[in-house]
Amino acid sequence: MSKRVVLAYSGGLDTSVIVRWLTDRGFEVITYTADVGQGEELSEIEEKAKMAGAVEAVIDDIKEEFAREYCMPLMRAGALYEGKYPLLSALSRPLISKKLVELAHKVGADYVAHGSTGKGNDQVRFEASVWALDPDIEVLAPVREWEFKSREEEIEYAQKYGIPVVATKEKPYSYDRNLWGVAIESGPLEDPYAEPPEDAFVLTVSPEKAPDTPEYVEIEFKEGIPVAINGKVYKDLWKLIWDLNEIAGKHGFGRIDMIENRLVGIKSREVYESPAGLLLIKAYDELESMVLDRFTYHYKITHVRHPYAEVVYNGLWFSTLRESLDAFNENIAKLITGKVKFKLYKGCGNVVGRSAEKSMYIEDLATYSPHDSFDHKAGAAFTKVWSLPLKVAGRVRK
Amino acid sequence: MSKRVVLAYSGGLDTSVIVRWLTDRGFEVITYTADVGQGEELSEIEEKAKMAGAVEAVIDDIKEEFAREYCMPLMRAGALYEGKYPLLSALSRPLISKKLVELAHKVGADYVAHGSTGKGNDQVRFEASVWALDPDIEVLAPVREWEFKSREEEIEYAQKYGIPVVATKEKPYSYDRNLWGVAIESGPLEDPYAEPPEDAFVLTVSPEKAPDTPEYVEIEFKEGIPVAINGKVYKDLWKLIWDLNEIAGKHGFGRIDMIENRLVGIKSREVYESPAGLLLIKAYDELESMVLDRFTYHYKITHVRHPYAEVVYNGLWFSTLRESLDAFNENIAKLITGKVKFKLYKGCGNVVGRSAEKSMYIEDLATYSPHDSFDHKAGAAFTKVWSLPLKVAGRVRK
Amino acid sequence: MSKRVVLAYSGGLDTSVIVRWLTDRGFEVITYTADVGQGEELSEIEEKAKMAGAVEAVIDDIKEEFAREYCMPLMRAGALYEGKYPLLSALSRPLISKKLVELAHKVGADYVAHGSTGKGNDQVRFEASVWALDPDIEVLAPVREWEFKSREEEIEYAQKYGIPVVATKEKPYSYDRNLWGVAIESGPLEDPYAEPPEDAFVLTVSPEKAPDTPEYVEIEFKEGIPVAINGKVYKDLWKLIWDLNEIAGKHGFGRIDMIENRLVGIKSREVYESPAGLLLIKAYDELESMVLDRFTYHYKITHVRHPYAEVVYNGLWFSTLRESLDAFNENIAKLITGKVKFKLYKGCGNVVGRSAEKSMYIEDLATYSPHDSFDHKAGAAFTKVWSLPLKVAGRVRK
Amino acid sequence: MSKRVVLAYSGGLDTSVIVRWLTDRGFEVITYTADVGQGEELSEIEEKAKMAGAVEAVIDDIKEEFAREYCMPLMRAGALYEGKYPLLSALSRPLISKKLVELAHKVGADYVAHGSTGKGNDQVRFEASVWALDPDIEVLAPVREWEFKSREEEIEYAQKYGIPVVATKEKPYSYDRNLWGVAIESGPLEDPYAEPPEDAFVLTVSPEKAPDTPEYVEIEFKEGIPVAINGKVYKDLWKLIWDLNEIAGKHGFGRIDMIENRLVGIKSREVYESPAGLLLIKAYDELESMVLDRFTYHYKITHVRHPYAEVVYNGLWFSTLRESLDAFNENIAKLITGKVKFKLYKGCGNVVGRSAEKSMYIEDLATYSPHDSFDHKAGAAFTKVWSLPLKVAGRVRK
Repeated sequence: MSKRVVLAYSGGLDTSVIVRWLTDRGFEVITYTADVGQGEELSEIEEKAKMAGAVEAVIDDIKEEFAREYCMPLMRAGALYEGKYPLLSALSRPLISKKLVELAHKVGADYVAHGSTGKGNDQVRFEASVWALDPDIEVLAPVREWEFKSREEEIEYAQKYGIPVVATKEKPYSYDRNLWGVAIESGPLEDPYAEPPEDAFVLTVSPEKAPDTPEYVEIEFKEGIPVAINGKVYKDLWKLIWDLNEIAGKHGFGRIDMIENRLVGIKSREVYESPAGLLLIKAYDELESMVLDRFTYHYKITHVRHPYAEVVYNGLWFSTLRESLDAFNENIAKLITGKVKFKLYKGCGNVVGRSAEKSMYIEDLATYSPHDSFDHKAGAAFTKVWSLPLKVAGRVRK
Repeated sequence: MSKRVVLAYSGGLDTSVIVRWLTDRGFEVITYTADVGQGEELSEIEEKAKMAGAVEAVIDDIKEEFAREYCMPLMRAGALYEGKYPLLSALSRPLISKKLVELAHKVGADYVAHGSTGKGNDQVRFEASVWALDPDIEVLAPVREWEFKSREEEIEYAQKYGIPVVATKEKPYSYDRNLWGVAIESGPLEDPYAEPPEDAFVLTVSPEKAPDTPEYVEIEFKEGIPVAINGKVYKDLWKLIWDLNEIAGKHGFGRIDMIENRLVGIKSREVYESPAGLLLIKAYDELESMVLDRFTYHYKITHVRHPYAEVVYNGLWFSTLRESLDAFNENIAKLITGKVKFKLYKGCGNVVGRSAEKSMYIEDLATYSPHDSFDHKAGAAFTKVWSLPLKVAGRVRK
Repeated sequence: MSKRVVLAYSGGLDTSVIVRWLTDRGFEVITYTADVGQGEELSEIEEKAKMAGAVEAVIDDIKEEFAREYCMPLMRAGALYEGKYPLLSALSRPLISKKLVELAHKVGADYVAHGSTGKGNDQVRFEASVWALDPDIEVLAPVREWEFKSREEEIEYAQKYGIPVVATKEKPYSYDRNLWGVAIESGPLEDPYAEPPEDAFVLTVSPEKAPDTPEYVEIEFKEGIPVAINGKVYKDLWKLIWDLNEIAGKHGFGRIDMIENRLVGIKSREVYESPAGLLLIKAYDELESMVLDRFTYHYKITHVRHPYAEVVYNGLWFSTLRESLDAFNENIAKLITGKVKFKLYKGCGNVVGRSAEKSMYIEDLATYSPHDSFDHKAGAAFTKVWSLPLKVAGRVRK
Repeated sequence: MSKRVVLAYSGGLDTSVIVRWLTDRGFEVITYTADVGQGEELSEIEEKAKMAGAVEAVIDDIKEEFAREYCMPLMRAGALYEGKYPLLSALSRPLISKKLVELAHKVGADYVAHGSTGKGNDQVRFEASVWALDPDIEVLAPVREWEFKSREEEIEYAQKYGIPVVATKEKPYSYDRNLWGVAIESGPLEDPYAEPPEDAFVLTVSPEKAPDTPEYVEIEFKEGIPVAINGKVYKDLWKLIWDLNEIAGKHGFGRIDMIENRLVGIKSREVYESPAGLLLIKAYDELESMVLDRFTYHYKITHVRHPYAEVVYNGLWFSTLRESLDAFNENIAKLITGKVKFKLYKGCGNVVGRSAEKSMYIEDLATYSPHDSFDHKAGAAFTKVWSLPLKVAGRVRK
C-alpha cells in the first residue's frame, strides 16, 4: 500500500493541521476542495494547502452537480430530519466522498482523510459513503485520534509548522455552509433556552431588520425541477438556488432552531439557515398536494418523508434504499409542473397561491356554490359504508 | 319508533330551516347547541330554535371538556392533517355527537340530525360517531336530501315560515369556529391561486398590521398539559387556550392556507386560523424533542402523527385505534414537563428556547468545547459497525 | 350516447342473465371473456354469450400479460393483504378492466358492465380501474340494481329466456380462479369456527393425502423474475406459474383460511388456494433477505408490503401510488438473481436453502469459528454508542 | 469502587472461564443463573460456579415473570423480527439484565458481567438494559477482550484452573434456549444453501417422523392472555407455554430457518425453534383479525409489528418506545377473549377455526345468501366516491 492520501480540505485550521500531521506520519497528502456553494473565495486554497505540506491541491466546482443530483432528490422527497432540518451538511458529504474516491483512484491513493470528529454525524457520512463506493479504501480521521488535548495545543502545533492561524476570535461559532444553507454550532448556541444571538446568522437578516413591505415570489417547476423565479428562467440550477437564498434571506426567512438527535446518540441544539431549501421543499409539497391523489399524498407523508430524511442523515446516501426511494419520488416528479406563489415578510414565507398543469383541484366538485357537480346522495351512502366498522363495533359493545 | 329527534343546532339559517322541515315531516325537534368556544353569544339561541318550531332547546357549555378530552389528545399526538391542518372542526364533531346521543337517550329520541352536506367530511364525523356510541340511532341529514335547489329557495322557505334571515351579504365566507380555531370556506377562497382576502380572517390580524415589536411568550407544561402562560397559571384549560389565541392572533400568527383532500375524494382549498392550536402543537413537539430518545421520537414522527390525524379527520374518533394511539401518547405525556419560549412577530411564531425537567440534552456530551465527555474513539468504531452493510454492498458490487 | 356495452363475461348464470337483462333495456351487448389462467375451457363461451343475446363475443388469452405485468409486481412487493391473502382476484380485475376499456374504445361502446355485487370488493376494483383509464365511460352493474330478490327468481328469468342453467347443486361454493390461485366463498365456509370441508378445494390436495415423501423444489430468479424450476428454464412465465401450482398443490401447499376486512366495511371468512403465489412471494423475500442491506429490507417490510397490498386490494391499481411503489420495487428487482430451495411435504413448503449472486451474507463475518474477520472491540464501542440514549434516559430517571 | 461483580452465569465453559478470569483480575465474582425455561437441571450450578472461583452463586426461577412480562407483550405485539424470528433470545436478555442490576444493588457490586461476544446482538441487549436501569454500573464483557485466540487456548486455561471441560464434541451447534424457544447456531448451519441437519433440533421432531394423524388444539384467551389448552385451564402461564411447546413440537411445528440482519451489520443464517411462540402469535393475530376494525388492524400490521420487533431485537426493551407501544397493545388486549383452533400435522400448524366474544364478524352482513342485511345500493355510491380521485386523475390525464 502506497502512503498516498486524498484529504477533504477546507483551508481552515483543522484540515491544515491534518495536512501537516499526516505528512509527518509519512503520507503524501493531496488535498481536495470542492465549491459546493459555500460562498467562499477558493483562490488561496492551493497556496494554503501547499504551505501546510500538501504535494498537490485540487479545487473543483461541483455546485451544479450538487444542486441537480443531491438537492433535487432531497426536495422531491420533502425530507426534513425530525420534521425540521433540511439536511444541508448531510447532503454535501456523500458528493464530496464520491469525489474523494474518484480522485484517490486517479492519483493512486489507498487512503482518504477527513476532518470530522468522533462525536458528530459527518464521520459516518464520509466513511459510509467512501466504503460504499470502494470498500478497499482506508479512511483516516486524524481529529478522532490525535494527541492535541485542546484548541491551544493544536494552534501551537500549527504555529510551529508555519501554518497560518487566522485570529477570528469575535465569532465563537463554527459553520458548515453550502448551496442548501448553513449549519451554525457552538458557543452560546449550546444553551438551549437562550435565543440564538443575531451575530450568528449568515444568510438571513433579522426579521426586525427585514423590509417593511412584503415581497411576492413565484417559483415555477417543470417536471419536478424549479426552472424560474418570478418568470426569470434559469439555465443553471445552482444559480436559481443561490438567488433564492438571497431573495428569501433578505426577508429573514429560513432560520431553524432545534434540538436534534445525532446518530451517535447525543442530543444537540442546532441552528441552521436554509432560505432556498425550505422554500423549495414547501413549494414542491404544495404542488404535490394539488397534483397527487389522496392515497399517494398520504403515503408520501407517512412513509417517505421522514424515512428518506433518516437515510440521508444517517450517511446512507449510497444505499439501495435511497436509490429506490428516489425511483419512487421520480415517478411522481414527472407530474409536478406548475407554480407556487410565496409572500415573504419579516421572517415568514407563506404559500398564498398555487397552480399546476395536472391539478386535481376541480372547482366544480369542491365548490359550495350552486353549480356543484358532486352527488350528495352518494355522500350519504359513502358515509354509511365508511362508518360500518364503527357501527358494528358499537353493536358489539352493546 | 317515536318521531322525536335531537338536532345539532347552530342558530344559523340552515339548521333553523331544518327545525321547520323536520317538524313538517312529523318530527318533534329538540335542538342541542354547544358552546365549544366559538365566541358567540348563545342567549338568543333558545328563542330562535323555538321560533323555528323546536319543542325544546338545550344549550350546553362544553368548552372545558372539549379542551381537556379533545384538544389535548390531538396536541399530544402532534396531529396535523396532511402536515398542515390542526383538525379543528374534525375535533368538535365527535364531542357534539356524544352529547347528541346522550341527549337522545335522555329525552327518548330515536333520531339525531345534523346540518352537514353530502360532500363534506362532517357528515362522516357525525354519523360514524353517533353509530359508534349507539348503532340503533337513526341519523337524519336533511341538507343532503331536501328539495331546495338554491340558497334562494331555502330563504324563501324560511321567510314563508317566519324564520329570521339575517342579511349578512358582505362576507361571502362560511365559518366553523371553536376553541381550537376557525375554518373559513367559500367565495374567493375557491380560487387556489388567489391570496385569501384580509376580510376573511377572524382570529388573526394581518402580519402587516401586527405590532412592530416582537413579543416573547413562554408556555409551561406539566405532565403533558399546558398550565401557564408567561408564569400565569390557569385553572381552566379552555381559558388558557382562549388567551393564547388572543396573544398569538394579535401578532398575525396561526394562519393556514392549503389544498386539502377530503375523505369523499374531493380536493378543496381551505383556509384556517389556529393560533393557540399551532403554538401548542409546536411547543409540545419541542419538549418531546428534548425529552424523548431518538428511537421514540422518530417512531412518533413516522408512525403516529399523520396516522392519528387521518383517524380524526376521517371521523374515527370513537375507535379502538384512536384510543390505543392515545394510550401510546399518554405514556409519553407523563414525561413532558417544562417550558417553551416563542417569539411572536409579524405572522411568525418561532421557538427560541426550551427547557425540560427530564431533558436528555446533556451539554457535556453535546459540546464541541474541551470539557467534552464523549469518547471519540467509540465514534470511530461505531462508524465502522454502522457502515458495514454499505461496505459489504460495495464489495458485492465490486 | 350509443347504447352499446362491453360486458365482462364468465359464461356463468349471473353474467348470462346480465346479457339478456341489458339487451332487454335496449343495449347492444358485446361480451369479453379473458383467459387469465382459470383453467376452464373457453370454447363454448361464444355460443353461450350469443344464446343469451350478445351481438358479439370476444375471447382473449391474456395469461402471459397477467403473469408479467400483474403477478410479478405483486410478488416483488411481497404483498399479502392483512399479512395473508395474495390478492388473486384483486389482481385480475384491473387487467380485465383495461381490456374492457380498450374493447369499448374499439367497438365504440360508451358503457362497460360487470357482474359484481354491491357488497364485495370487485365492484370497486372494476369501476376505479375503468374510470382511471377513461373517466367518461359509464359502468353498469346490473346485479346491484336488478329486481330479482332470490336465486330462484333469477333462474326463472334465465329459463324464460332460454339461458341454460347448469344444475351444479353439489358444490355450495362460489369460485374465482386465475393463474395466481383461487378464491372460495359461501356455504359452510361462512361459519368461521368450522374447518373448511375438503371438497371446497381445487388446486391443493389434502395434506393427509399428499405424498409420504418430501419433494425438493428449486426456483431460480434472474433480475427479479423466476426463470426456472429445478433447472428447467421456462420461456412462458405463465407456464412456470401454472406448473408451480401443480407441483406445490400436489403436496397440499398453498391454502389460506382467514377473516378478512373488505373495503366496504364487512368482515368475511375467506378461503384461498395460491400454491404458486405463496411459494414465489416466499422465495422472492428469501432472496431479498440475502441481498438487501438491513436498512432497505426493514423499510420494505414496514413501509412497502402491506401498503402495497392495500392499494391493490382497494382497487387502486391504476394509481400514481402503485406505479411509484413499483418503481421502488423494480429498483430492487435488478439485484435479485439467485435460487431458493423449498421442501414440500404434507401441506408445508419451507425454505431450506438459498443462494444469490449479490449475496451480502459473508461467512467470514458471520461465523463463530476462529477464522472470523469481524473486529470484536468495535462491537464494544458500537454498543456503547448505540446504548447512549438509554443510558442518558437512565440518568435522567435517577 | 469495590471490585465486586455480578456475572450472568450459564454453567458452560465460557462463563466458567470468565469467573476465573475476573477473579484473577482482582474481582469478587457473584454468579447469577436464571431458570427462564431452558429445561436444564440447575442443581449443579452452584458447585460449578464455586469450583471456578465464585464467592457466591445465586439461582433464580423467573419462568413465570418471563412468561407474563416478556413473552406476553411480544405476543400481543405480533412481533416477528424480519417477519420471521420470534425474538426468543432478545426477550430473555432484558429480564436477566434487570435481575443482574437488582442483585448488584443488593450485594453492593459496581460491575455486572456477561459472556457475549463482540459481534452478536446480545452484548447490546445486556448493556443497553443494564445502563437503562442503572447508568452508573460498569459492564464487563471478558469474551470481547480476553487474550485467548482460539477455543483450544480457552480450554487449556480452563484445565489449568481445574474448570471441568465437558467434551460434547458430537454436536457442533451452540444453543440458547428459554420458554419461548431455542436459537441454534454454528457449524453446518453457516452454509445458507444447506438444509439444517436433523440433529440440530431440540424442541421439534422431523415432520417426517411426526404422527400420521393430525391433532387439533384449541387455545383459549381471556383479555389477551392464553388461559387454556383444549379446555384445560392453566394457573401458571409458563406451564401453558411449556406444554404448548411439547404439543406442537411433537408434530414438527415451530422451525424457522432464515437469513437475519444483526444489529452490528452482519448477516447470519439462523435456525430457531419456537413451537409455542409461533402458535401463540398466530392465535392472537387470528383473534385480532376477528375483533379489530379494519382501521386498527391495518395500523397494527403496518406500524406496530415490525417496529416493535426491531425495538426488542435492538436491545431497547427498557425504552419509552417499548413501554408506549405496550400501552397501545394493552388497550387492544382488553378486547381479545375467544378461542382459536389449530390443526397440527407433519410440520404445519394452521388455523382452522376461531371465535371471539367481541367478534365483529357478522354473518348477516358477510353472507352471499339471500338473508343478507347489507345495502347493495350503498355499495354503488361508495364505489363512486371511493373511485373519485382516480376518476379525476383519469380526467387530468385526458
